[in-house]
Amino acid sequence: MSKPKVFEKPLGVRDYLPYAVRGLRTIENNVIHCMEKWGYQEIITPTLEYYDTVGMASLTSDHKLFKLLDKKGTTLVLRSDNTAPIARVVSSLLKDEPLPIRLSYHSNVFRAMKDEAGRDAEFVQTGAELIGDGSPDADAEIIALAISSLKAAGIKNFKIALGHMGFLQGLFEETLIANQEEQTLLKKHLLNKNYVGYKQAIKHLSIPKEAKQELEGILKLRGGKEICELAKTYINDPSTKQSIHHLFEVWEVLEAYGVSEHVGIDLTMLGDFSYYTGMTFEGYAGKLGFPVCSGGRYDNLLTQFGRPAPATGFSLKTNRILEVVSHNSNHEFPRTLILYDEQNRTEALKHAQMLRTDGQIIETRKTTSLIESKSHLLQNYTDIINMTKGGK
Amino acid sequence: MSKPKVFEKPLGVRDYLPYAVRGLRTIENNVIHCMEKWGYQEIITPTLEYYDTVGMASLTSDHKLFKLLDKKGTTLVLRSDNTAPIARVVSSLLKDEPLPIRLSYHSNVFRAMKDEAGRDAEFVQTGAELIGDGSPDADAEIIALAISSLKAAGIKNFKIALGHMGFLQGLFEETLIANQEEQTLLKKHLLNKNYVGYKQAIKHLSIPKEAKQELEGILKLRGGKEICELAKTYINDPSTKQSIHHLFEVWEVLEAYGVSEHVGIDLTMLGDFSYYTGMTFEGYAGKLGFPVCSGGRYDNLLTQFGRPAPATGFSLKTNRILEVVSHNSNHEFPRTLILYDEQNRTEALKHAQMLRTDGQIIETRKTTSLIESKSHLLQNYTDIINMTKGGK
Repeated sequence: MSKPKVFEKPLGVRDYLPYAVRGLRTIENNVIHCMEKWGYQEIITPTLEYYDTVGMASLTSDHKLFKLLDKKGTTLVLRSDNTAPIARVVSSLLKDEPLPIRLSYHSNVFRAMKDEAGRDAEFVQTGAELIGDGSPDADAEIIALAISSLKAAGIKNFKIALGHMGFLQGLFEETLIANQEEQTLLKKHLLNKNYVGYKQAIKHLSIPKEAKQELEGILKLRGGKEICELAKTYINDPSTKQSIHHLFEVWEVLEAYGVSEHVGIDLTMLGDFSYYTGMTFEGYAGKLGFPVCSGGRYDNLLTQFGRPAPATGFSLKTNRILEVVSHNSNHEFPRTLILYDEQNRTEALKHAQMLRTDGQIIETRKTTSLIESKSHLLQNYTDIINMTKGGK
Repeated sequence: MSKPKVFEKPLGVRDYLPYAVRGLRTIENNVIHCMEKWGYQEIITPTLEYYDTVGMASLTSDHKLFKLLDKKGTTLVLRSDNTAPIARVVSSLLKDEPLPIRLSYHSNVFRAMKDEAGRDAEFVQTGAELIGDGSPDADAEIIALAISSLKAAGIKNFKIALGHMGFLQGLFEETLIANQEEQTLLKKHLLNKNYVGYKQAIKHLSIPKEAKQELEGILKLRGGKEICELAKTYINDPSTKQSIHHLFEVWEVLEAYGVSEHVGIDLTMLGDFSYYTGMTFEGYAGKLGFPVCSGGRYDNLLTQFGRPAPATGFSLKTNRILEVVSHNSNHEFPRTLILYDEQNRTEALKHAQMLRTDGQIIETRKTTSLIESKSHLLQNYTDIINMTKGGK
């Protein structure tokens, strides 16, 4: 294969120029600060983890993991999410800390790409995990914090879709008995929000007409807490009924937070990741078709690291948020250039330092005989102070 | 080989718990803000780069690069420094920006480790690059900015050692003619600051006595700008004399900045990296034997990316600085826990949100029948507000 050109970078990664970094920094600082006020303390885990521990426990499919070998021949992965590393820390370095534990993070994650699918191989997540509390109040806290974080990030119009892993699972088991293949096909259609495909697939099932009607009927299960009451009529299994009751209680706490106006229940929603065990949610901004945040309850993950505990959390898709809000941050700060010559150097550098202490952005430059014309320089600076002998 | 245990992480990487993250964030924000006021704008480059481009151009020896393959079989590396990626960006995305260009960065870099040598495989660098200005004023600006950055990072006692790649190169070529093996041995001793080994090695050289005396004499070439005058007596080559004159001028500009008290010239200092072409410097804090910052002029790097330009820059070794200043940041912020029950939930959550808007850190918890004793909770919180019916 041909060698990459000298200016090229790998597929799916990007450079953030100063205006983009300013936007990213604003989101980062505002969101981390917001989470801090809710008691979530930031931690940083390494970019490299063992494949056999965090790699295996992560929510990322194996073929999307970036793998490499360390000097001893052990397989490492580039962090593909932040939740599994945090579960490792909570079970090791923080094993003596009493639960609940509230942690936040802001870091890049990696997903290997097969081709130019327009997806990022490296992107930023900002998120929070609440570990050790299985109550509806904990789930609602995470959703309310996600809403506060989206606002802190500068997103004005957004909607949270809230579902529960238990409902579809219970319903499918009741109607399809245990045909895994059929379940997987239906789930795939729902995951891709391909409702036409979903209906077509139901038609081809060899199950009673009533069961087909039920499966088709769930597409209507979207709305407020009344959906929970309606959903209970679809199912008989007590534990599934309990799942729906939990979701109902989450909604009640969201009402207490005063944020339920941002939320809609959607029982056809399937979390992208097999490790969610309870409520899941996704946040959509404006007219964008892809979520800007996602989260849910994952009560089995901590067990894999030896400290069984319920847990719930979310992450913002920070790069996408940057795209949504970037028009706000795309302004340059005023900057001044001080020109000096050898004779006035000490005076000029002292003046520059004084103005910086005042908070101004000051560049300095010793002039040579051929300095660019002032009009050219003014394109790049708000102001030019000429402290050369000739310029005074 | 045995599988890693579930709580283990790879060799040389670490988790930063909240108190360490607070320290890191303080350094990061203060230093990036300091650099911003000098006109340096932050950029972020990807963690993954092509081996054949940035990997080859980087200052890291090949065996220390973390290598992996992308899906097409092209070799990638984990970023091992920030200077080579920035050279790529200046020569591509920023190719139409007029020089000089001032950029800053704060990011993690990677070096593969062979064994438990106590060295980090992943660590953080915060630095600045001034591209397109070959003057002594540019070199002095970078050193003065390094000094301001160390102060902004919270380091009180530090010393900058300033040298020049040209001096030793010129002297060795005059005295040892062209024996590369001998030159390499002497350089290795100086790089390791093994002055005893250096003197021993000189004794075994088959060169005139006067040349030996000269080579030994340079160990005394440490001090202020008078060292430059003294150094000129060691050499005849005009371009080496020009190097020393450049260093003399850098010192004069440092005097104009009023920072020369922090700097000492050390002509035995060798930059760690073969790509430095002019002045180099290292910063030492307190009594630590290892540098907390390093930098220098690298006039050849940009050529490799197709936009020839002189350049000078430095990076702080941010992890080491964190160790030096961490005692300052190891304090918890006051945090309050609000306990509530179902009846008082709306009121409690509203109160919590009000206090957060006031800037306080507030956690909330729905009580169960068996709540931990208040004294236990007080270990983790500055204050507890009991808004349960029973507690009122």
